[in-house]
Amino acid sequence: MSLVTLGVFDVARARAFYEALGWRGQEVEQTVFFQAGGLAVVLWGRAALAADACVEDTGAAFGGTALAHNVRSPAEVDAVLAEAAAAGATVSRPAARTFYGGYAGCFADPDGHVWEIAFNPGFPLGPDGALTVPDLGGS
Amino acid sequence: MSLVTLGVFDVARARAFYEALGWRGQEVEQTVFFQAGGLAVVLWGRAALAADACVEDTGAAFGGTALAHNVRSPAEVDAVLAEAAAAGATVSRPAARTFYGGYAGCFADPDGHVWEIAFNPGFPLGPDGALTVPDLGGS
Repeated sequence: MSLVTLGVFDVARARAFYEALGWRGQEVEQTVFFQAGGLAVVLWGRAALAADACVEDTGAAFGGTALAHNVRSPAEVDAVLAEAAAAGATVSRPAARTFYGGYAGCFADPDGHVWEIAFNPGFPLGPDGALTVPDLGGS
Repeated sequence: MSLVTLGVFDVARARAFYEALGWRGQEVEQTVFFQAGGLAVVLWGRAALAADACVEDTGAAFGGTALAHNVRSPAEVDAVLAEAAAAGATVSRPAARTFYGGYAGCFADPDGHVWEIAFNPGFPLGPDGALTVPDLGGS
């Protein structure tokens, strides 16, 4: 996976939201590119994105995709959720302990895109933030 | 960004689709984890995902998010789209040259998640597939 594009109703508002969380974007032709670890997160007008992908846009906030950003401590989960709320997000699930021994909460950005902010001691993060899926003992 | 979770209607079908494209998953409690560069792509039941994130699920295929996977040549774009179609995807936009001097097309996976497969000579890919946003000369 190389890019995740978030269709938004107001590119300037969305850029201001993500920059309030500490990201720095580059805008070219009403499209904003953020480096996010080894991939790019892109903000683009939602109608243009749907047309470009040749999909119908019913205006739904949730299309079955959720994004997660893992951090290094429970305190950092609380800090990111507080920053997001201050920047205009809706905290849709307050931070709490998780069944896997972690700590996580969710917010929806001003366009309804859902992010989970999680501390998961079982999924190592590299120095650059890259996440490694461990051997889960699954099938 | 650490994980992208795709809500699906049939986890086994979705896993088979992505494994047909060459990924290898690990399944734990009806959740499948794929390593995808420096992040994880996760397949999970769509109803569970919506409930977990505390968002309403209207059943829409498009919620304003699109995923892209960049490859190293136009021929590789064609190959991935052909593999995806053979594995059950719908090619929603056939591959064609792009305004930025690249070559790209889109497919929707069996649950409607849209992926763009792109060759973009202006966005370098590292040996591990990590994408770097170049200096775009933007604002």
